[in-house]
Amino acid sequence: MSTLETLRDTVRTFAAERDWDQFHSPKNLAMALSVEASELLEHFQWLTEEQSRQLSADKLAEVKHEMADVLIYLVRLADKLNVDLMTAASEKIVLNGQKYPADKAKGTMKKYSEL
Amino acid sequence: MSTLETLRDTVRTFAAERDWDQFHSPKNLAMALSVEASELLEHFQWLTEEQSRQLSADKLAEVKHEMADVLIYLVRLADKLNVDLMTAASEKIVLNGQKYPADKAKGTMKKYSEL
Amino acid sequence: MSTLETLRDTVRTFAAERDWDQFHSPKNLAMALSVEASELLEHFQWLTEEQSRQLSADKLAEVKHEMADVLIYLVRLADKLNVDLMTAASEKIVLNGQKYPADKAKGTMKKYSEL
Amino acid sequence: MSTLETLRDTVRTFAAERDWDQFHSPKNLAMALSVEASELLEHFQWLTEEQSRQLSADKLAEVKHEMADVLIYLVRLADKLNVDLMTAASEKIVLNGQKYPADKAKGTMKKYSEL
Repeated sequence: MSTLETLRDTVRTFAAERDWDQFHSPKNLAMALSVEASELLEHFQWLTEEQSRQLSADKLAEVKHEMADVLIYLVRLADKLNVDLMTAASEKIVLNGQKYPADKAKGTMKKYSEL
Repeated sequence: MSTLETLRDTVRTFAAERDWDQFHSPKNLAMALSVEASELLEHFQWLTEEQSRQLSADKLAEVKHEMADVLIYLVRLADKLNVDLMTAASEKIVLNGQKYPADKAKGTMKKYSEL
Repeated sequence: MSTLETLRDTVRTFAAERDWDQFHSPKNLAMALSVEASELLEHFQWLTEEQSRQLSADKLAEVKHEMADVLIYLVRLADKLNVDLMTAASEKIVLNGQKYPADKAKGTMKKYSEL
Repeated sequence: MSTLETLRDTVRTFAAERDWDQFHSPKNLAMALSVEASELLEHFQWLTEEQSRQLSADKLAEVKHEMADVLIYLVRLADKLNVDLMTAASEKIVLNGQKYPADKAKGTMKKYSEL
């Protein structure tokens, strides 16, 4: 079964085989991650929200690969920083729940500082 | 054992309890993902590459939470688009390997079109 | 009369007074520009397109300052790279006109490669 | 003499000739601006800071056009929101000067909240 650890190892090998560790500073990886997130965003920029819910198969295939790139760089950055992504996400969801209690945040996207 | 599916379900419940599905169009989620990736990037913008390899514990804790937010929105977007992230990543790594063959890409970050 | 040249000089002095030239490599400035563009984006991420056309005065004031930050970093980067922004924009509009001829691009946001 | 007002008018005509006003909501323009800022960033992601100071003529030509796109969308967004960019930048520089007094901020990129 495939997990983030497996993916991390695959990406690590991929980089090692190409001698890319020298380029993979956390600073550069954070840039690459942000660039990939924007390439993903580009697919949606002129769509209405409704259209974004009904992507064609071709478009979805492209979007899927951009999402994959985001995940790959995120996992690579986590590897370099020794971050356990699943633990970090669990912790963050608890924090988010404190910032956005269900009763106060219901049906609104106001920032927590304005709730 | 914690997997992306568990995280997806947790995030789905979190959104449902707050009645946030109405805001979570793929377009909006792609925006939120990109915004979080930039908040992550912000931590690195004035650091040298070397400094980015040696974050203080405080800084790392902040960085970790930004990375968590990126993962959370990525998983949420994948849920909305019915994308299996692990499969997408596996496919993308194969494609990346074709674009960047190890012998040609060794030690260089040239774009595949320039290799 | 206020021009981009005046702004460039003001920003240059601002940086010099703070001894910030050492941080203002084109790489870092491109990061800062992108981070500011995302802070601008953040204001719009949960709004409908219609809501984004009718910002409150408070929101608009915030948005205005994010736009200012984008311009300031853009002008600063142009200074460091010796780019004349107005000339670059004029040239780019000519190129855009060739990629998107008015008759073909009318009423569609398809990419030029798909027109 | 070329000013931001001239550019605004040129871009306005460009959009009108293509019937693109329907797509140019502030929300969408903020997305496009952010995407262009990332395309600019992409050119720098694997360069060292030193390399980013010494771009080849070819690279610089590409970078210049990405900067132009950022400016074009910024001016377009300002037009839609009735923002005077030069005034906004002047105001923001005053605010930045208060957040980062020259004596405190000298030679450091700490956030104003940490000065």
